[in-house]
Amino acid sequence: MARAIELAARGRYTTPPNPCVGCVIVQSGEVVGEGWHQRAGEDHAEINALKSAGSAAGGATAYVTLEPCSHHGRTPPCSQALIKAGVARVVVAMEDPNPQVAGSGLNELREAGITVESGVLSGEAEALNPGFVKRMREGRPLVRSKLAMSLDGRTAMASGESVWITGSDARRDVHRMRAASCAIVTGVGTVLADDPSLNVRLEEDEYEGELRQPLRVVLDPRLSTPVDAKMLKLPGRTLIVTACDDEEQVELLNAAGADVLVLPAREDAIDLPELMRQLAALEINEVMLETGATLSGAMLQAGLIDEMVVYVAPHLMGNSARGLFHLPGLEQMDQRIDLKIDDIRAVGDDWRITARPTVN
Amino acid sequence: MARAIELAARGRYTTPPNPCVGCVIVQSGEVVGEGWHQRAGEDHAEINALKSAGSAAGGATAYVTLEPCSHHGRTPPCSQALIKAGVARVVVAMEDPNPQVAGSGLNELREAGITVESGVLSGEAEALNPGFVKRMREGRPLVRSKLAMSLDGRTAMASGESVWITGSDARRDVHRMRAASCAIVTGVGTVLADDPSLNVRLEEDEYEGELRQPLRVVLDPRLSTPVDAKMLKLPGRTLIVTACDDEEQVELLNAAGADVLVLPAREDAIDLPELMRQLAALEINEVMLETGATLSGAMLQAGLIDEMVVYVAPHLMGNSARGLFHLPGLEQMDQRIDLKIDDIRAVGDDWRITARPTVN
Repeated sequence: MARAIELAARGRYTTPPNPCVGCVIVQSGEVVGEGWHQRAGEDHAEINALKSAGSAAGGATAYVTLEPCSHHGRTPPCSQALIKAGVARVVVAMEDPNPQVAGSGLNELREAGITVESGVLSGEAEALNPGFVKRMREGRPLVRSKLAMSLDGRTAMASGESVWITGSDARRDVHRMRAASCAIVTGVGTVLADDPSLNVRLEEDEYEGELRQPLRVVLDPRLSTPVDAKMLKLPGRTLIVTACDDEEQVELLNAAGADVLVLPAREDAIDLPELMRQLAALEINEVMLETGATLSGAMLQAGLIDEMVVYVAPHLMGNSARGLFHLPGLEQMDQRIDLKIDDIRAVGDDWRITARPTVN
Repeated sequence: MARAIELAARGRYTTPPNPCVGCVIVQSGEVVGEGWHQRAGEDHAEINALKSAGSAAGGATAYVTLEPCSHHGRTPPCSQALIKAGVARVVVAMEDPNPQVAGSGLNELREAGITVESGVLSGEAEALNPGFVKRMREGRPLVRSKLAMSLDGRTAMASGESVWITGSDARRDVHRMRAASCAIVTGVGTVLADDPSLNVRLEEDEYEGELRQPLRVVLDPRLSTPVDAKMLKLPGRTLIVTACDDEEQVELLNAAGADVLVLPAREDAIDLPELMRQLAALEINEVMLETGATLSGAMLQAGLIDEMVVYVAPHLMGNSARGLFHLPGLEQMDQRIDLKIDDIRAVGDDWRITARPTVN
């Protein structure tokens, strides 16, 4: 199963919106087939493993990181393929997290006389697909807020000057994080100030197959994204989310290559929980938030941030520089937001802190 | 020598203003005597080791973490004691860092026919006494700034509310840091706002012998320290440093138990470099800075901070809360202060980051 998880992880930049899945087929103590799911629409892990095992799959045990599907999606159901190949035993790490289908793939296998076990290394398997699991269970994507700050918690000078806070290793790390995300969310303020690309730029030896560009999502309440914004000309889609129903501006942005989603406003701002539901409906598993202090703070106060990844650069910028989170209303110590720090590690000359709000 | 360094470290809370020194005496491959310097005014490490070795010191090798003294201070010179005991060989980790005496102890030993070696584990030996070494070489103490902040770099709410940012393990760690310091420096703003004790509170199993209270130093330009400040009633001395020559107020503070040092003002503020020279003259090796953002920033901008120890609590306090360093004039990215992060480790639920300004 550990090997199947290893295989599954190889799809992390390419499988979304599908989950990463790995499969190993073992016959008389020997591995006779291996496979992983490489890209949505292409063969699932089980099919790839069965193909590599050939006739050796008869009477064998299949180790799969996720319950085999029992429904016809873009590909035929894997449960039937395992039955047809004559597999004797199927061990899965976890059931399908979609409560409406959970267990039906395993039941189909059992009904065909196959021995079925479930729950082996389930924690590790779930960690392969935290966003997929959350979307299936809660109808909301997993949101990671990426932040970069000096040691004294500053993101930019008072003037807005901010480029190159962290070093090149941290920036590469950010691109890997983007590559594993389904969508990158930013605010129009960042677009107007920095005209960012918000695309994935990886070295060729860092991924297999074709590079997938995450959906770029710009929160733009008054539709002020310029039609010549750099990101609109790059490979991949851009979705502009607004509370402004200006048809003329929507048409201009559409013509420039952007999709526009109009959401009813909530307290004079974009309805963030509704936006998350809409993104889940678009099969967005993992959202990466790359925004300034206002939107980061609003997302945090709305309870929508699951994880924050904070790059700490070895600098001091002083109290007049800009901070990380604008949290209006937080005025007393007992209102402060508690975190659980999961990991701190060096990334080049910088440090990366991974933390979660403990209320989530 | 590694054992001698271990012994030396046992004196870290008690030897100041003297350095920590350890000594091991080896005869035919066996340890026959051990000792360390426990307290200024009492026997040095070599004397303690010679006493424990007795007659076995004849023809033996003495390993000492610091060059034996050759002058009469509060105790007779150790070089003479080693000669008298008939030691055949002396190995020292480092020479006396005071450039005016460096090597004279070793020369005395050589002249008496003793084989002398120097420089064994010198880095480790120097790390035992960074403040002592700095004071001897540069006439200035080593300054460590202790800071406590939320993950987003905040020390207190806008209102000033700030107690209990970090957990109990971090607070115990701070007391150990205080115990190893010769002086704790704070600003009068902290005294007026929090009326702190600034004393060392350690569990009994954390130290040997009697607990030494570091000198408390309050930077108080206009002599506004209240005569009923809590720290004036506690064991240990308090030194109030001012630029204000108000004799009546000085007398009141003296009567309340404080010493007062009047320094000529420099640009309308206390002359910080001069203060450091004065503290060195008072045999202060290691200074711990526990102050708010204004004095921390001023010390940093004056280049007087050697090391910062930042406790990071797993909380977010938001952008309206108070920051770490007030750094007036720092307005552009290229003016930011570069750090070298030496260490990051968990302390209970908090994290401790040790860093140095790279210009220092």
